[in-house]
Amino acid sequence: MSTGFDPLAATCPAPLTEDERVLLGHGSGGRLMAELLADLTPRLGAPATEDAALVTTGAPEIVVSTDGFVVTPRFFPGGDIGSLAVHGTVNDLAMRGAVPVALTLAYIVEEGLPLEELRRVTASVAAAARACDVPVVTGDTKVVGRGAADGLYVTTTGVGVRLPGAHVSAAGGRPGDAVLLSGPIGLHGVTILSTREGLGFETGIASDSRPLHRLAAAMITAGSCGVHALRDPTRGGLSAALNELAAASGVGVELDEPAVPVPPEVAAACDLLGLDPLHVANEGCLVAFVDPARAGAVLSAMRARPEGAQATRIGTLVAGHPGRVIMRTLVGSTRVVDLLVGEQLPRIC
Amino acid sequence: MSTGFDPLAATCPAPLTEDERVLLGHGSGGRLMAELLADLTPRLGAPATEDAALVTTGAPEIVVSTDGFVVTPRFFPGGDIGSLAVHGTVNDLAMRGAVPVALTLAYIVEEGLPLEELRRVTASVAAAARACDVPVVTGDTKVVGRGAADGLYVTTTGVGVRLPGAHVSAAGGRPGDAVLLSGPIGLHGVTILSTREGLGFETGIASDSRPLHRLAAAMITAGSCGVHALRDPTRGGLSAALNELAAASGVGVELDEPAVPVPPEVAAACDLLGLDPLHVANEGCLVAFVDPARAGAVLSAMRARPEGAQATRIGTLVAGHPGRVIMRTLVGSTRVVDLLVGEQLPRIC
Repeated sequence: MSTGFDPLAATCPAPLTEDERVLLGHGSGGRLMAELLADLTPRLGAPATEDAALVTTGAPEIVVSTDGFVVTPRFFPGGDIGSLAVHGTVNDLAMRGAVPVALTLAYIVEEGLPLEELRRVTASVAAAARACDVPVVTGDTKVVGRGAADGLYVTTTGVGVRLPGAHVSAAGGRPGDAVLLSGPIGLHGVTILSTREGLGFETGIASDSRPLHRLAAAMITAGSCGVHALRDPTRGGLSAALNELAAASGVGVELDEPAVPVPPEVAAACDLLGLDPLHVANEGCLVAFVDPARAGAVLSAMRARPEGAQATRIGTLVAGHPGRVIMRTLVGSTRVVDLLVGEQLPRIC
Repeated sequence: MSTGFDPLAATCPAPLTEDERVLLGHGSGGRLMAELLADLTPRLGAPATEDAALVTTGAPEIVVSTDGFVVTPRFFPGGDIGSLAVHGTVNDLAMRGAVPVALTLAYIVEEGLPLEELRRVTASVAAAARACDVPVVTGDTKVVGRGAADGLYVTTTGVGVRLPGAHVSAAGGRPGDAVLLSGPIGLHGVTILSTREGLGFETGIASDSRPLHRLAAAMITAGSCGVHALRDPTRGGLSAALNELAAASGVGVELDEPAVPVPPEVAAACDLLGLDPLHVANEGCLVAFVDPARAGAVLSAMRARPEGAQATRIGTLVAGHPGRVIMRTLVGSTRVVDLLVGEQLPRIC
């Protein structure tokens, strides 16, 4: 999630006071983060509803997105900070219907980092970028003293060109739209947490980190103007992504709990750790609001690609309770799926 | 300076060994940094001669640049980390003959930073961007635990559109070109160092941090194809900028020492601290290689703008000693102006 999005602007968060300090929870993708962004983004005069911005330079339409990566550990099952940075940025572009055309790479390095590690990350950035068919065109390296960073931070920025016919936006959802999810949730967050804390869950699972631009393009081709909104549920998980889109679109979301794919290993880890899988970060799936008349065609197109092989419909948009996400549980009751207040899993991406 | 540039690729630096670690000097803009970049950039397959990259998306030509800012202190006479980030990125675009059309902003924040400070920096980013006529279109905020960063790091990326008729490139210099400098050198570096260490020099001076895109545009309008190369001498100072351009252009540079404008406060501070003003960072001046037939017109255009009021000719390009910068001193002798090996002033930008 980027500072671009401010789900609480409409609901008037309590103003942050003068003497408050930044908390880990301010980086969570949850309610504290939303409050921080509601405080900061008006100072920039920036539109605050997307992770990637459209830049008007004439045709073609240019889309830009930026993301910092501070994940710890830097190497984990399924990826590393380098591949994660490339995928995260490519995916933010893809969620605006854009094909990536260039990436930039900025390192902040702590003095004393083994050069071999910097080489490994750089090789991983290069390999991931090649696999996405996007060049790394420029970069920057800053070195800070020991103790002034934790090894390595990576900031990537992507420049993309919008696909003709792509009209996706966070505000695009309409009542009646199908809510589609491209694959199982919770894998990235549980993998990072387990690897970092030595919990052992990571032996059975790996991060889902991967690029989604080809999947998004296939969906837009199959669904045309019927693909109304796309979002990759990263920090804050599926819950944050759906709450953000619901708020921006002014619609309610009704989820069908049994339809939400949670891998058994993720469910087991979340049970043990007291986490809600809906709040756990993902780096390789997307959620979409799609016109019901095109939902079948879009779902077929998703399933035809490896990264969408397990795509499924998880719910429907409704006119009632705009901005709220409601889950119909297995036993037929309903519950509100809300943003977390603070930090569940710091430094997950 | 960004990782885009690798002045030593042609001169075969000693390969870095397996067990080496990143040193502060690897971020210096000097020879150690050049060696690190020579090691890393081939892994990215990135062209390695500019701070900003041209992206081919059709017309108009898009230019992209990224830079991380880790300056300490974050607030200093003449600016702060926010305005510095905006100016630095706008200037990297300007050095490719591009007008900025969009900025992105990524924060890495240490837990515990006073929110008021984050607000001040954000307001400063916004004010600097407005003054440059460029919007901040998207951003990202990551929070890391106490001790995992030093307060706040800022990474900005700029997207620009190249001016019609701009043919500037690092490799554009030709023997006979005039070497023009837009203003006095050393102000930024001495201000930061003096403020950080409490040396007291900063009472008389301030950082020269400011945008140079309007100056660059005026030069290109006045000089047309005669403006061959532009560079802002940031990390590593005028020495690094000239060495980089000389290497990329395959020409020698002859500087005239009395013509290089060093403010008395900078000279005094450098004398006392054992620094060479040619190695001290700047954030508000540029150096240009210009066709001698257009140099007069370009110099007039520079002097007509406040940021170029003190523009002057400091030397000439020669066919001899390609890649080397030679200074004719006051007493008529010559000396080689080389890259520093390691770190002179860490965290200067």
